[in-house]
Amino acid sequence: MEPTTFVLFGATGDLAKRKIYPALYNLFVDGKLPQSFSVIGLGRREWTDESFQANVEQSIRRFSRREADDAGLVKDFLNAFRFCVLDIGRKEDYQKLLKMIEQRENELNVAPNRLFYLSVGPEYFETIAANIQDSGLGSANGWKRLVIEKPFGHDLQSARDLNRNLSKSFAEQEVFRIDHYLGKPMVQKLGALQQANPVIQALWTNRYIANVQITANETVGVEERAGYYDHIGAVRDMFQNHLLQLFMMTAIHLPHDSAPDKVRFKKKKVMESLRTLQKQDVSANVIRGQYKAGSMQGKPVVGYTSEPGIAPDSMNDTFIAAKLEIDDSYWRGVPFYIRTGKRLNEKSTRIVVEFKEPLKPVSSSNEDNIAPNLLVFDIGPNEGITLQLNTKDPERKGEFKPVHIDIDLQDSQDNVPEAYENLIYDALLGDPTFFAHWDEVEMSWEWVQPLLEAFEENLVPLYLYEAGSYGPAESDALLAKDGFHWWFDAKPEQQIPNVEGEQQYAYNSNH
Amino acid sequence: MEPTTFVLFGATGDLAKRKIYPALYNLFVDGKLPQSFSVIGLGRREWTDESFQANVEQSIRRFSRREADDAGLVKDFLNAFRFCVLDIGRKEDYQKLLKMIEQRENELNVAPNRLFYLSVGPEYFETIAANIQDSGLGSANGWKRLVIEKPFGHDLQSARDLNRNLSKSFAEQEVFRIDHYLGKPMVQKLGALQQANPVIQALWTNRYIANVQITANETVGVEERAGYYDHIGAVRDMFQNHLLQLFMMTAIHLPHDSAPDKVRFKKKKVMESLRTLQKQDVSANVIRGQYKAGSMQGKPVVGYTSEPGIAPDSMNDTFIAAKLEIDDSYWRGVPFYIRTGKRLNEKSTRIVVEFKEPLKPVSSSNEDNIAPNLLVFDIGPNEGITLQLNTKDPERKGEFKPVHIDIDLQDSQDNVPEAYENLIYDALLGDPTFFAHWDEVEMSWEWVQPLLEAFEENLVPLYLYEAGSYGPAESDALLAKDGFHWWFDAKPEQQIPNVEGEQQYAYNSNH
Repeated sequence: MEPTTFVLFGATGDLAKRKIYPALYNLFVDGKLPQSFSVIGLGRREWTDESFQANVEQSIRRFSRREADDAGLVKDFLNAFRFCVLDIGRKEDYQKLLKMIEQRENELNVAPNRLFYLSVGPEYFETIAANIQDSGLGSANGWKRLVIEKPFGHDLQSARDLNRNLSKSFAEQEVFRIDHYLGKPMVQKLGALQQANPVIQALWTNRYIANVQITANETVGVEERAGYYDHIGAVRDMFQNHLLQLFMMTAIHLPHDSAPDKVRFKKKKVMESLRTLQKQDVSANVIRGQYKAGSMQGKPVVGYTSEPGIAPDSMNDTFIAAKLEIDDSYWRGVPFYIRTGKRLNEKSTRIVVEFKEPLKPVSSSNEDNIAPNLLVFDIGPNEGITLQLNTKDPERKGEFKPVHIDIDLQDSQDNVPEAYENLIYDALLGDPTFFAHWDEVEMSWEWVQPLLEAFEENLVPLYLYEAGSYGPAESDALLAKDGFHWWFDAKPEQQIPNVEGEQQYAYNSNH
Repeated sequence: MEPTTFVLFGATGDLAKRKIYPALYNLFVDGKLPQSFSVIGLGRREWTDESFQANVEQSIRRFSRREADDAGLVKDFLNAFRFCVLDIGRKEDYQKLLKMIEQRENELNVAPNRLFYLSVGPEYFETIAANIQDSGLGSANGWKRLVIEKPFGHDLQSARDLNRNLSKSFAEQEVFRIDHYLGKPMVQKLGALQQANPVIQALWTNRYIANVQITANETVGVEERAGYYDHIGAVRDMFQNHLLQLFMMTAIHLPHDSAPDKVRFKKKKVMESLRTLQKQDVSANVIRGQYKAGSMQGKPVVGYTSEPGIAPDSMNDTFIAAKLEIDDSYWRGVPFYIRTGKRLNEKSTRIVVEFKEPLKPVSSSNEDNIAPNLLVFDIGPNEGITLQLNTKDPERKGEFKPVHIDIDLQDSQDNVPEAYENLIYDALLGDPTFFAHWDEVEMSWEWVQPLLEAFEENLVPLYLYEAGSYGPAESDALLAKDGFHWWFDAKPEQQIPNVEGEQQYAYNSNH
């Protein structure tokens, strides 16, 4: 790993505190940072190196996976941190920054490899990139990389504009777009499981798969993000990025020796084969929903339009369910059903692969009571892979019963890095595998654009659903007309209390 | 379930005591015996009904899976038992038996459905069957069934003779040939797993399977069966019956709604497609072994020819390993390696299905260190199904590591009937699925006959192997020449002490 200066815009922000510093510390403890490594924190606040280090220390004590109980180790870690007051719009500040970086590089006697991490609002991306370019912060004697968080654009055109502007300063291979779903351990295992196992690979086609269901349900409402969310909706906030990335990761076929470029290439191929929707077809394939008043775990909650900060006549989508079809030889005829929303019955991110019963037509009724085989990836809040098989019921001769096989990949919990660790580590290595490449981002927006327009023009009904339900009934009907149903939606009498296990974070993405 | 009279030849014997009475009792407790049910025990000893019942009670207290602590229940069970002194060769005794059965049937007011269970040496099978026929024990007003234990013949000709003679008294559909391996819970699950799960069925072909390994290793030597065993050898004692049955059960493809006749038909198809060996080809495909002195768990043991009761110049096989090939569209190109022997390193009966790595030629070296996928059926002494998959090694970026997934079919141990329970229950129902049908028995002998002749004529070397090893090195070479190796043979340094977990029984089959 090459010596690196990690230049962090937004060093005083919430994401840095909750995710980036803890991730860096975990990597440090695990010996996964470069031998020579500096962090230059940037922000408008008048912090000193010392106050910066104190803030970082507080953050790692509170949020890091690895214990921060070895004072010497913590001190070594904090020693790498320097602060530089910077106003994003002031060119002089970038000159000051350059001097500071060069000084550190001289002190450490290392090459000028600089990773610029933009943990700031998207409105600053272009300014920062341009100023990095203009100030000469990218040196010819080393490499430079740009790590940016979502959102990448607001629609197809704005994403293209943003990319064109960034590309004046950074080449595509220098841009690492974080979609933290791609860093989640279970998502990375999803790829690996298919990649390294012929028995899974063999099954990964329309010959054996009946349908795929990708769910990212939330129980929370809009919370403090109301003003932002009301202009974004579920389709931009979750669907265009996280869910389409999960979709690509599920649909690609990777040989086990695949190079990073292969992943990018295969994801692009999937998106190229994705059947596009015309504006007028959206309503037949996409369900738009918005929560009305209801109850969560027995407590009444208000409807979306009664939330503080939301326009009372808002038509914003807080739920979306869509049917996607891939027109290639692997997936032709296999619907991918994707849904996400707020104020739903339970918090869960999950991929369900439902296999065909080869002996009968896919949509016939299950009159003989043999359950289909399922492969289930629970991504959050619980992690796990489960295979549903059938076995002989030892108590009822000649009958079968379904059993759930827990595919325990035997990673000790201690050793599983979190999403931000995986992603920062990969960015330090320069490995783009688990980042969102421009091709994908652009094609995702291309697919979503007709939805945005159809929503805007009200060509698609806005179905209200009760808070605490699984979304509008039309979401169930979307599958029912193909002979399927959403798996694992609890029946009302089966609802398990206290399914919310995960803390909610308040930084710019709370997923 | 129809009223049945269970007529047991060999009622004073060891198999009856250890297996049949406990199985009947377990079925009784589980409510799986006919409402009206009688047992007539037969033997030469002058037992009374009372002494018979006392013996049965002792047996169930000692060996049954279900508790025998409810005195009333035990009494109800024992009430069904009557004893009749009978000399197998005396025709008058069969008349007496007929009277006794008819009297019981009148008492109970039931139809004359009679199940004749022959728990006696094979030399008596034909006499008993003929006497049943001649004495009129088979009544036109009910059904009759014949349940017989192995061995069924000593070679192809004797098996055919035996069958022809039995068929004078019993039609094929009335004959239930017990191969107790077919009653083992894991063997029945093997069929069910494939039958009821499209994801397993999909993989069950030469497209995905590289080879199949069927092992039945024993740690015991010949023990008290020396005189018998020295004329039988591993090929007749284990291979022709149990192992070829496991082979058929592994190789058949069953739809989930398959009727019993389908199983018979599919097994027959497998045997018809099995490539036959000519006498002169045996040595290239079959390894014959005999154990010499060695050590078992650190204690020295004598070689086979030094065992009491064994001829010092015996050429008898105590080990056999064979490569079988099925010439059909499912299995062409997939070798089935089958081995069994005595005085081997560990006791285990196991089926390993090794899957192909689709990206490289089957026999290439594993230079990239990706382990193949395996599906493993542990049949005894431990039971279990394990899937070996590969996962990403979270500690070594980009590398994969194999993990073992325990396919827990979630049967509570309490509810899993033992082999004899399954088989007796099926015989009472008249369900022939898990019995050895004549077609299979005959074709098994047909396949084995050239081996017997090649052994007899010494066309095949007799390889000596050390007691406590995994058999002769030639057994490993048999797989190595195809680029494979036996899975799960412990390396010398990995040998786990105390692997013998199961009691050894002394009745006519100790497997």
